[in-house]
Amino acid sequence: MGAMRVLLLAAALLALACSHGATASDPSLLQDFCVADKTSQVRVNGLACKDAKDVVVEDFFFSGLHVAGNTSNKQGAVVTPVNIAQVGGLNTLGISLARIDYTPSGLNPPHTHPRSTEILTVLEGCLEVGFVTSNPENKHFTKVLNKGDVFVFPKGLVHYQFNNGVTNAVAVAALSSQNPGVITIANAVFGAKPSIPDDVIAKAFQVQKNTVDFIQAQF
Amino acid sequence: MGAMRVLLLAAALLALACSHGATASDPSLLQDFCVADKTSQVRVNGLACKDAKDVVVEDFFFSGLHVAGNTSNKQGAVVTPVNIAQVGGLNTLGISLARIDYTPSGLNPPHTHPRSTEILTVLEGCLEVGFVTSNPENKHFTKVLNKGDVFVFPKGLVHYQFNNGVTNAVAVAALSSQNPGVITIANAVFGAKPSIPDDVIAKAFQVQKNTVDFIQAQF
Amino acid sequence: MGAMRVLLLAAALLALACSHGATASDPSLLQDFCVADKTSQVRVNGLACKDAKDVVVEDFFFSGLHVAGNTSNKQGAVVTPVNIAQVGGLNTLGISLARIDYTPSGLNPPHTHPRSTEILTVLEGCLEVGFVTSNPENKHFTKVLNKGDVFVFPKGLVHYQFNNGVTNAVAVAALSSQNPGVITIANAVFGAKPSIPDDVIAKAFQVQKNTVDFIQAQF
Amino acid sequence: MGAMRVLLLAAALLALACSHGATASDPSLLQDFCVADKTSQVRVNGLACKDAKDVVVEDFFFSGLHVAGNTSNKQGAVVTPVNIAQVGGLNTLGISLARIDYTPSGLNPPHTHPRSTEILTVLEGCLEVGFVTSNPENKHFTKVLNKGDVFVFPKGLVHYQFNNGVTNAVAVAALSSQNPGVITIANAVFGAKPSIPDDVIAKAFQVQKNTVDFIQAQF
Amino acid sequence: MGAMRVLLLAAALLALACSHGATASDPSLLQDFCVADKTSQVRVNGLACKDAKDVVVEDFFFSGLHVAGNTSNKQGAVVTPVNIAQVGGLNTLGISLARIDYTPSGLNPPHTHPRSTEILTVLEGCLEVGFVTSNPENKHFTKVLNKGDVFVFPKGLVHYQFNNGVTNAVAVAALSSQNPGVITIANAVFGAKPSIPDDVIAKAFQVQKNTVDFIQAQF
Amino acid sequence: MGAMRVLLLAAALLALACSHGATASDPSLLQDFCVADKTSQVRVNGLACKDAKDVVVEDFFFSGLHVAGNTSNKQGAVVTPVNIAQVGGLNTLGISLARIDYTPSGLNPPHTHPRSTEILTVLEGCLEVGFVTSNPENKHFTKVLNKGDVFVFPKGLVHYQFNNGVTNAVAVAALSSQNPGVITIANAVFGAKPSIPDDVIAKAFQVQKNTVDFIQAQF
Repeated sequence: MGAMRVLLLAAALLALACSHGATASDPSLLQDFCVADKTSQVRVNGLACKDAKDVVVEDFFFSGLHVAGNTSNKQGAVVTPVNIAQVGGLNTLGISLARIDYTPSGLNPPHTHPRSTEILTVLEGCLEVGFVTSNPENKHFTKVLNKGDVFVFPKGLVHYQFNNGVTNAVAVAALSSQNPGVITIANAVFGAKPSIPDDVIAKAFQVQKNTVDFIQAQF
Repeated sequence: MGAMRVLLLAAALLALACSHGATASDPSLLQDFCVADKTSQVRVNGLACKDAKDVVVEDFFFSGLHVAGNTSNKQGAVVTPVNIAQVGGLNTLGISLARIDYTPSGLNPPHTHPRSTEILTVLEGCLEVGFVTSNPENKHFTKVLNKGDVFVFPKGLVHYQFNNGVTNAVAVAALSSQNPGVITIANAVFGAKPSIPDDVIAKAFQVQKNTVDFIQAQF
Repeated sequence: MGAMRVLLLAAALLALACSHGATASDPSLLQDFCVADKTSQVRVNGLACKDAKDVVVEDFFFSGLHVAGNTSNKQGAVVTPVNIAQVGGLNTLGISLARIDYTPSGLNPPHTHPRSTEILTVLEGCLEVGFVTSNPENKHFTKVLNKGDVFVFPKGLVHYQFNNGVTNAVAVAALSSQNPGVITIANAVFGAKPSIPDDVIAKAFQVQKNTVDFIQAQF
Repeated sequence: MGAMRVLLLAAALLALACSHGATASDPSLLQDFCVADKTSQVRVNGLACKDAKDVVVEDFFFSGLHVAGNTSNKQGAVVTPVNIAQVGGLNTLGISLARIDYTPSGLNPPHTHPRSTEILTVLEGCLEVGFVTSNPENKHFTKVLNKGDVFVFPKGLVHYQFNNGVTNAVAVAALSSQNPGVITIANAVFGAKPSIPDDVIAKAFQVQKNTVDFIQAQF
Repeated sequence: MGAMRVLLLAAALLALACSHGATASDPSLLQDFCVADKTSQVRVNGLACKDAKDVVVEDFFFSGLHVAGNTSNKQGAVVTPVNIAQVGGLNTLGISLARIDYTPSGLNPPHTHPRSTEILTVLEGCLEVGFVTSNPENKHFTKVLNKGDVFVFPKGLVHYQFNNGVTNAVAVAALSSQNPGVITIANAVFGAKPSIPDDVIAKAFQVQKNTVDFIQAQF
Repeated sequence: MGAMRVLLLAAALLALACSHGATASDPSLLQDFCVADKTSQVRVNGLACKDAKDVVVEDFFFSGLHVAGNTSNKQGAVVTPVNIAQVGGLNTLGISLARIDYTPSGLNPPHTHPRSTEILTVLEGCLEVGFVTSNPENKHFTKVLNKGDVFVFPKGLVHYQFNNGVTNAVAVAALSSQNPGVITIANAVFGAKPSIPDDVIAKAFQVQKNTVDFIQAQF
């Protein structure tokens, strides 16, 4: 049965441009801006642009990042994205944001952003964070962060944040892409649709197939 | 006489990689990370890297972004940068941050980032912000932002933030470069060292030379 | 009252792709060429392309760069652009040109190209040129150029050219973008539409509001 | 009269995206994938994308690379391309393949890829290969390759492969572009349509015009 | 206890440039080539270059890709890399190769390349392959490949190959980076050094901590 | 015997950064400028930088582009380059220039720039110019240019200029790279050192080996 639903819902928004087969323009800017035309039928890398004369100030605006997301989910954490899906003016500009809320013991589980580095600022509470380098070292860099601390997760590497404190935590992440993408490891491996064959996963993780089946049932 | 001194001091830090003739690597990442080796004598585009085995978790870390900067300066605003000059791990990763504090009537004066888009989040207070497009329109997009509001300033365009409220304001800006650079218009035009000839500025701004001389004396 | 009108008219052409909400393709070329289809309704980063079989040799051609522009304007200088707005074949190719004519005391006033480096060649006459680095140095590099001299203005920095000679001057500039953009500082700050509030500008330039109002009235 | 016909036919496929005035998106990926929509009327740099929900696994698939191409042509060599023209899923992903078959004495004649480096692996037989650096050295790097050997031809340089063995040879080339392009030197110079004037070629190659005319007649 | 050791050994080579803290130049080529100088003490993004006059043809050469790797390991699969660590001439050129050998039931377990798309060709045998899209779909694209089949794994996405046949299988992968990097999911999550806390992993995968401890012991 | 000597001498300068095993930084600028340090022993993609505090205005300057080059050579044409080899300030800025002088019947023979588009302006005289697209079309776009005419040669394509007038001609070319490179087709194919085997060239150009030997003797 479903876990991480709320987190995934946020992630869904975070990945909206992709899930819509959405497409866009490119990061080497060729005019002052290329605000996404979300009504366009044209699909390109990124999104097609609005006519410049139809661009309004609201195209560069988002409100509500001070509002806590709903953390009532199995992971006790939720992401509120502010990327190309929410702010059309970000199209071709190579940057986006997200707010993350964590209950005590709330977890933003191990994931990668295939198209982005992340720089995270803790606004409230306390987070244990980490990232792991690629093969063969798989070196784990980890640190406990407090209010006002900033941490960098290099592009494409597996990373996580865990609220090891007794109060709620809040962080803001800046990401180096208009649509960074999120690959939650557990979901991609155990929750793929259709499933990755259990013998493949069992061999990869060196476990019995029934352990794999048990985990897949959670997703 | 000196104006904007404190703001400039922060700006100086914000631009440190450049002012040191500092140099670095490039944004198309060719390994997991390329943490800046600030002791290196080698100057390249960006900064040379540390040996990966000498990299420590602190290379990706900064603390103190919750602390207000000192706004006791003529503009009533101060920038606390978190870029390649403060966090060596950002080298080649294409992103950075800054905290900005504003007193009531505090101003982050019109400036450009020659290498970066900016996405700003208001943490406290109220800001009147704007940016202006390039010739020939010079169209001014402006909006009043409140707590939790987010706004995008496209790469290279002139923009500003002004605290039109009665309380202090605080914002965090994310920028799409490890070293975005800041060109404060007033300083670049009237405070260049050595000065731009006053007849050049007088003609450009359609004013008398003594007006130019008066303004130059402020910087 | 209007100043810099003719210069702006040329600048308007120089920025046409943007002012049309024009959009285009990207600088990492994926076919031999992607000639702009100026009749296309499709808006992307840069411009959409013509069918390759409809491309003609004139798409790569412009004539008249030997003809002096009309310098009868307040600045005594005029830009004749040769970019994506004039030559559709430049689309995705990352380069453009401009001819600049200057009367004696003619000025191409302080401006930036948000998307381009400029390399300028003096064809006739004599020019005093300069550029200013970013904060905190705001270092002014300046030089007097004569016929046959070449000078580089790095990407995004404020620069100008002034004819300090007694005869007309002519220069050709090459720019590292199909649509480099021009931000004339005086126009962006004092001529924005709608205006930037005069108290913002007054504080930024350390002048009285009535001085700001006077300057704004020129633009 | 026609020479290199079959080789050119393959090359034609290799260059299809261009020959169709085809257009596409860009290599800085802004979503998980941007599979080429070959039915789209929209022309951009690269190709427009299919709606993500219409993407099928076959979009990432090609079969038959184990099948020898038909080498019955004057050069005794044939290229079987696997690029954006064959595999729509490669759009925006920056890579492609080609299989090359050579009879004994078969030649893949001197050519450049204007948008790509090539890394070649010999699967069967023996090849004499080489590339030449740019002016002024025109240094020729050459080597005899056997089964299992790998060789790199840097982007944009003139290179060739010649089967100097007594059996057929087979190689697979990987190229760093979805549409690398092929400029066969002999065809571009002597087989251009319409012809490059024979006096231009005669002077360039320091030969008589009738020699040029003779060679042009072969293409 | 150690699993995937041999596979990891190969992966270690595949990632050598990083594990050495090695660094290099960039993919926007600024000369004909920039062959890696592996003796250089200079660390940049990618690798520093040899003096062009010391470059030899062997710098662009690798032999032995026809030789099967040793698949005597728990996964029954081994990667033979041909990237910047093996061929210095690839530096700045944006491409590399790998041979992969699989026993029957051999598995190249779920992994990502943080810096590269992969295009795989089956030379011998039969492979079941797949990749999974990012959140929220986690859509699994999977296909059985036979000799001569080619398949594309888009940049940054989780993918795997499994030999579901009764004979050995061999594939060649081309990758769109000189140093694509490999993040084997099981190793990054369960084999990180030092370990990711078991309560973090337990919560992420919705399993008991002792299950996590059991899996971690395999790596 | 030597032909095109003078043209090659200029080309040699044009390619100097490469011939020195020169190396440099990259085009995604990470500071205001990265002026080439020509005394540096460090070799990277492009060139290492000077300390910013040692940069002088002359680093951005070149004089003499109004002076005709010496056209006393077999081709009757000579290139005066203004690129990274002449102007260190161009490092990482992605642009350069060249002046070309032609006697009547003077020829800038068919060549490619592997790293650059070219936009050419005719300053004096009359030129017949052309470029040829890639396979399979090899379409020849050609035009006669007069004073003040501008023409674009897309990146990587074979192109030439021929003075079909009765007076000297002069042009200025702008190129979209600090070090565009020049591959003169005749020199790369017939003048490579050591030679490309004559049987390879004979087969490629469909001529007798003694014709090849005759042509090779000219270079």
